[in-house]
Amino acid sequence: MLVVQKYGGSSVANAERIFNVAGRITETYDKGNDVVVILSAQGDTTDDLIEKAAEINPDASRREMDMLLSTGEQQSVALMAMALSKMGYKAISLNAFQVGIETTPDYSVAKISKISDERIKKELAEKKIVLVTGFQGYNEYFDVTTLGRGGSDTSAVAIAAALKADLCEIYTDVDGVYTSDPRIVKDAQKMKEVSFDEMSELASLGAKVLHTRSVEVAQKFGVNLVVRSSLTKAEGTVVKEGKDIMETVLVRGVASDKDVAKVVVKDVANGTDKTFKIFSALGKASVSVDMISQYPTENGTYTVEFTINKDDTSVAVKALNEAGYSNVTAETGMAKVSIVGTGMATHPNVACDMFEALADANIEVDFIATSEIRISVLVAESDVNAALVALHDKFELGK
Amino acid sequence: MLVVQKYGGSSVANAERIFNVAGRITETYDKGNDVVVILSAQGDTTDDLIEKAAEINPDASRREMDMLLSTGEQQSVALMAMALSKMGYKAISLNAFQVGIETTPDYSVAKISKISDERIKKELAEKKIVLVTGFQGYNEYFDVTTLGRGGSDTSAVAIAAALKADLCEIYTDVDGVYTSDPRIVKDAQKMKEVSFDEMSELASLGAKVLHTRSVEVAQKFGVNLVVRSSLTKAEGTVVKEGKDIMETVLVRGVASDKDVAKVVVKDVANGTDKTFKIFSALGKASVSVDMISQYPTENGTYTVEFTINKDDTSVAVKALNEAGYSNVTAETGMAKVSIVGTGMATHPNVACDMFEALADANIEVDFIATSEIRISVLVAESDVNAALVALHDKFELGK
Repeated sequence: MLVVQKYGGSSVANAERIFNVAGRITETYDKGNDVVVILSAQGDTTDDLIEKAAEINPDASRREMDMLLSTGEQQSVALMAMALSKMGYKAISLNAFQVGIETTPDYSVAKISKISDERIKKELAEKKIVLVTGFQGYNEYFDVTTLGRGGSDTSAVAIAAALKADLCEIYTDVDGVYTSDPRIVKDAQKMKEVSFDEMSELASLGAKVLHTRSVEVAQKFGVNLVVRSSLTKAEGTVVKEGKDIMETVLVRGVASDKDVAKVVVKDVANGTDKTFKIFSALGKASVSVDMISQYPTENGTYTVEFTINKDDTSVAVKALNEAGYSNVTAETGMAKVSIVGTGMATHPNVACDMFEALADANIEVDFIATSEIRISVLVAESDVNAALVALHDKFELGK
Repeated sequence: MLVVQKYGGSSVANAERIFNVAGRITETYDKGNDVVVILSAQGDTTDDLIEKAAEINPDASRREMDMLLSTGEQQSVALMAMALSKMGYKAISLNAFQVGIETTPDYSVAKISKISDERIKKELAEKKIVLVTGFQGYNEYFDVTTLGRGGSDTSAVAIAAALKADLCEIYTDVDGVYTSDPRIVKDAQKMKEVSFDEMSELASLGAKVLHTRSVEVAQKFGVNLVVRSSLTKAEGTVVKEGKDIMETVLVRGVASDKDVAKVVVKDVANGTDKTFKIFSALGKASVSVDMISQYPTENGTYTVEFTINKDDTSVAVKALNEAGYSNVTAETGMAKVSIVGTGMATHPNVACDMFEALADANIEVDFIATSEIRISVLVAESDVNAALVALHDKFELGK
């Protein structure tokens, strides 16, 4: 069997943890499997490098940030190769250039476009455990790119897809996907299975178990995906096609995302292209927009509001200013709370129940956004925990 | 004019020093020059990474060490690009894969075999300051290699040669090449000029101003080389062809090298291939041998002694054991002291003066090795400073 495993930064934070993970890896290898391992940067390495860069240039270009940050994963794979070799196993570390992980040109938010399987297969044929840097690739200019925070999950799934692996295991510090954050909602339950669609929404909504893109790629290429803990032997959560999941529940989980900023653009001249212009300026700056709202004001202009990832705030405001919008403000201190479930779209009372629960808990709701399988609202950051508990209770997810 | 500059690790150890170096770089750029800069890893980064590796596997393979250590320089070039951009300059960082720095296969002690000038020239044409990782390349397996400690000097000279640069400036924390170590020999004098041959010997003998290979490459390709300080405006030392140097002095400098270990192999069976077998085993293990001595013992076998770099001790002993030599011992605590000068070979009294000075200072001499332009002796490490001072005085280098 060909198994792809991914371990996050906290799992390889120090020598002891590296050997712990090495034990996991060799256990799989000793069963006669071919093993490819994708690693993130150690512990706080990425944050430390970001801090180092900020000290020199808070507006550093994304290209140079990628060049800097990608070094963390390269250190992890080299150190893991040393640990495996110490344990008597043949192992080899490879970076994105060596594997041939091609991405789109966009620095910091690149998407994997192609992976060569040649080098990995050659090393596997020599019975080596292959260790690959997560989070990164290179683009058409032969420059280093990164896939965004948490992108190592996507690296793992994409490599599993390229190699047609039998299984892709994502090891994290939680032992699976829960109905809500167990640190906040005490009776949150671990799900045995979750559909790609649900996981995709949960991931993008801040459940932080999996990188959003990784779920999309897994679904697209039919990768067998399991989320499990690197610290326990617990079984984890299988992510699979919704139609394969026997028991469908209306609402599967409640998620929150605090990395949200709300941007308000005032004095926008009316015209059919008024929103297009704004979002094309943001697109060029590689800023992803989430919830959107627009409304006319008394003086005949429009106000356009939207939410983005908090980290993109300064880039977004700068891009809008440069595009000619001078009345731009950004607010933080808010969070997105969402309910997710495959059966929701056909049950209108779900939305009703959601607003009732929030009203009962005295929580004010700002933006509202819906999709086939989720409803999201923007609330004050201080209300997040109460909102999670209220919704988890309302939909009886603790049972 | 096309100028290649190289800055060492201490010159870029923190944000303040990075901006100091950035000031130097832009000063050269503002004069209308094209500028390519080669950087080492920040401050203690390389040592910290070596320590991290040793914690996991003290016998880590050289391949994985190279993979690990090469990240330090990549961080330096990215951070410098951010600093230059902050100052309003266009800059771009490139690693060895991106530039196309091909080396021999040997990890940790690779030699540059080919450099592509395409990418650098393209970036220079766009008026960017180009920052390139020192110390590293990649080999025919598309694996990361490093050039040995201090290898960034060689990176700089090789890139200067490939680009046919008009000038290659090596910035260090000393302001030039001295007749001896100024920290030990108080009246050591800065040389205005030094020949490639002399510099080559001084470098290999532990003067530590330049990486040995860098001098060889500069000589081979006729690179205009200057050694100067990144902290002062002092003129530095020009390294050039000996025939171009007007004033030839008998002895130019006195150098010491404490990174020496002496290996003693006993019970070596007699035979014409007895030394060949030993040094082929060491060659395969990529261990460079310096001074060599062999002598017969009473029982008909031979004892072979030689010196190597201290860092190679365990690799060397292991390689010899594996080649069937069981009676191998390694001694440290010694150092090599050498006098260097182009005129020496034709003046037999130089050797005589050297031994007289050491005898007068009551310093015991072990190995002796000579070349056209130097004489080296092995002494106890505790005698090094006294030997330097005695020789510096004897040859009147303080004048």
